[in-house]
Amino acid sequence: MAVLDADGTVHTQWGDIDRPVFPRSAVKVLQALPLVESGAAERWQLSDEELALACASHGGEPAHARTAAAMLAKAGVDATALECGAHWPYNDAALKALAASGQQPSALHNNCSGKHAGFVCLGCLMAGDSDRRAFLSGYVKPEHPVMREVTAALQATTGYDLAQAARGTDGCSIPTYAVPLRHLAHAFARVGTGVGLSAGHQRAARRLRAAVAAAPGMVAGSGRFDSRVMALLGERVFCKVGAEGVYCAALPGSGLGVAVKMDDGNNARACEVVMAALLLRLLPMSGDEQQQLSDLADVKLSNWNGIEVGRLRALPGLHRGACA
Amino acid sequence: MAVLDADGTVHTQWGDIDRPVFPRSAVKVLQALPLVESGAAERWQLSDEELALACASHGGEPAHARTAAAMLAKAGVDATALECGAHWPYNDAALKALAASGQQPSALHNNCSGKHAGFVCLGCLMAGDSDRRAFLSGYVKPEHPVMREVTAALQATTGYDLAQAARGTDGCSIPTYAVPLRHLAHAFARVGTGVGLSAGHQRAARRLRAAVAAAPGMVAGSGRFDSRVMALLGERVFCKVGAEGVYCAALPGSGLGVAVKMDDGNNARACEVVMAALLLRLLPMSGDEQQQLSDLADVKLSNWNGIEVGRLRALPGLHRGACA
Repeated sequence: MAVLDADGTVHTQWGDIDRPVFPRSAVKVLQALPLVESGAAERWQLSDEELALACASHGGEPAHARTAAAMLAKAGVDATALECGAHWPYNDAALKALAASGQQPSALHNNCSGKHAGFVCLGCLMAGDSDRRAFLSGYVKPEHPVMREVTAALQATTGYDLAQAARGTDGCSIPTYAVPLRHLAHAFARVGTGVGLSAGHQRAARRLRAAVAAAPGMVAGSGRFDSRVMALLGERVFCKVGAEGVYCAALPGSGLGVAVKMDDGNNARACEVVMAALLLRLLPMSGDEQQQLSDLADVKLSNWNGIEVGRLRALPGLHRGACA
Repeated sequence: MAVLDADGTVHTQWGDIDRPVFPRSAVKVLQALPLVESGAAERWQLSDEELALACASHGGEPAHARTAAAMLAKAGVDATALECGAHWPYNDAALKALAASGQQPSALHNNCSGKHAGFVCLGCLMAGDSDRRAFLSGYVKPEHPVMREVTAALQATTGYDLAQAARGTDGCSIPTYAVPLRHLAHAFARVGTGVGLSAGHQRAARRLRAAVAAAPGMVAGSGRFDSRVMALLGERVFCKVGAEGVYCAALPGSGLGVAVKMDDGNNARACEVVMAALLLRLLPMSGDEQQQLSDLADVKLSNWNGIEVGRLRALPGLHRGACA
């Protein structure tokens, strides 16, 4: 776990922060910077909801699928342009409702459909006068002009040489690069403060943070950690989960960026509790906000009969700052 | 990870095999011994399918729910006797079909419904001439006569003092005791060979192993590891997953018992691959069987577009025996 400021100074660290990890979906906000910087978000008049969805790992709820479709329509294409693949909604009620309707999921239900709709919107601008669909084809490949822009933003914000980094293929088929927690935390400190970013990335980061704060339900979904935390704290925090137990956050007020990787590879257990404990420690907040966040930092585990069978709690050291 | 014989001799160990872990559902076969030993299985004329389901963490497929209901009917009660709680089927197709039908899941869909139906069948015998439902009430509590029998079987087979052990409440509300891997592996060596067991437990273990080998689809479900392995290898292996990354197995031919705990707490990733690699190493098998098991020991990970994005593979040492 790494907490850094935008100058690259380490505020707190636990474990090896120089071992590269695949940040997966935790860096979607970095990957969405070109969408705004390029002028595509303005050209297609993307709303707060739509920009928040571009940074999202959403639950495939009806509003999420609808918003992704609207982004594509604004750019003059439809869901057939998406190359993320289809999967059943992660949101339980949405999955059951879709099954009950006798329908199959589409790419719009993929948790990454907003990010991909953002890539497609960027591609539709980059295509200029050429055929949009022909230009977009294969946009998930590392060498495609769209993905080059996305990778360049990741490199600029993390300051890490991605050409030398291990590269994998993400669940939605775009490249994912292994980056040390030190660089991920540094990138999020930059995104929160603008320090060390180009003017275009500064403006884009500010716009995306504001969009997510205005439409927090788009970035994750009903009852989910990221949506709850940002609905509670607004622009004071931007946090984002990634597959295999990664969490990143920007805390603009204190100028800090946070990057966490849990060895258990689970996104929704220790990871969320640790993030809640870190926010309690690092962010000034009201008593009511503290109480609500404390509920996320000390989670009751209930069995199928509603009996409490355990709790998920961060180590006291994490709360008190003993890990600094 | 511990591999022991029935005399308690360690054949192979990795990590700390004396640290207690909660075996959860991995010990269901031990918990089912009283069902047979008591004569309840005979009294209610339980079939192979029903006895296999008593050892199961099943997917809530229609056949599973139907079989649990049949067990209860034989003992003269119904699903309202179950105290395991309800949850949606783990099997994806079963969940969607249930949602599509507009129904809600019942306790019969709980992955533990067969184990609980076994407890209820045992309780209905123990009730004798008294009111069955009154006797059964609270059978999940540690102090209930049914659960005392279950705990006594766990203690007899593991040889571990459960009165001194940490006790938790399982997902289905029965007690779960923390037991070291050494004792879990020893218990499974005993269950596989009968060595060190009472005559009643010997007979019960043999009956349960035969039942699961005859009806492997009942112990887990369509496409799942335990069902696939036992369908392939029959009585040569009994293996059973437990929540939070535990796996236990009995290998009657070689007289060995196996107990694995993965630190990631995931039941269906490293855990299964390690178990497959151990079986390849410890069990004599045909070339075709080797090939089929090798597919479970080296698993391709595909993303939503079917692109291979990684593999799950056991360390070479596990295959070669370097860990001995």
